[in-house]
Amino acid sequence: MSSGFASSALQPGQSLARGVCRHLRGHDFVSVEELVPTSGLRVDVMALGPKGEIWVIECKSSRADFQTDRKWQGYLAWCDRFFWAVDADFPVTLLPDDTGLIIADSYDAEILRLGPEQRLAPARRKMLTQKFARHAAIRAQMARDPGCVSAF
Amino acid sequence: MSSGFASSALQPGQSLARGVCRHLRGHDFVSVEELVPTSGLRVDVMALGPKGEIWVIECKSSRADFQTDRKWQGYLAWCDRFFWAVDADFPVTLLPDDTGLIIADSYDAEILRLGPEQRLAPARRKMLTQKFARHAAIRAQMARDPGCVSAF
Repeated sequence: MSSGFASSALQPGQSLARGVCRHLRGHDFVSVEELVPTSGLRVDVMALGPKGEIWVIECKSSRADFQTDRKWQGYLAWCDRFFWAVDADFPVTLLPDDTGLIIADSYDAEILRLGPEQRLAPARRKMLTQKFARHAAIRAQMARDPGCVSAF
Repeated sequence: MSSGFASSALQPGQSLARGVCRHLRGHDFVSVEELVPTSGLRVDVMALGPKGEIWVIECKSSRADFQTDRKWQGYLAWCDRFFWAVDADFPVTLLPDDTGLIIADSYDAEILRLGPEQRLAPARRKMLTQKFARHAAIRAQMARDPGCVSAF
């Protein structure tokens, strides 16, 4: 595999997340995975746009995966726009109309619907941007210096 | 090596940067390397603190490395605090008194002098925090998905 990690090693949701993050780079958005905006919530993908926009993307690999999610409405308060990312076989009519929709696979994705924008308040945007920066920097440091973990 | 990368593969300045970044984590600062705050400037280490503080650390491996640096005063406008990081053999009396000082090796570091604080204006801090976030997220994505590069 030229992509370094075999796709088969990723869980279905992580595989969608990979394609989503790749696609968003084409829109000049950078992304992190598994960020915790507040205690008890963990988003699959948080993306930061060129103007500081913050998007949250939840990746659902199956109908059951969506139907057992009791927390998604809690994510709306932590982003300017919210999206579902699902594969091409997902029954998209299950998803609420007033949310964004991305069709993805492991390699790429396509934004089908933006959904409404609800702009974050400045203080929350500032806090989330800092949290995003810290999350990303820690992961980047772990990658370039795996020994840093044992240093603490 | 348990640290993943052999220290010998790093340039002397990068080796100091690694120790600096490890040490700063102990102060709850996260770090990126080689960030460009503005065209024509590239800082060795930019660190982001728990309260949004932004520090710049320039790593100097030798007297000559310091004496040929004609740009360092330009970094002062892009951080709340500025530091030199040098190894234990560096002639520290060469360094200006009113700058921060860190003694480092590949594995750790120690802050000897904080130097003065000159707080960034809010708009510049916001811009730098976003730039830091984007820089870190791109490096983290390249690490977890090396194939993302070829996708563009």
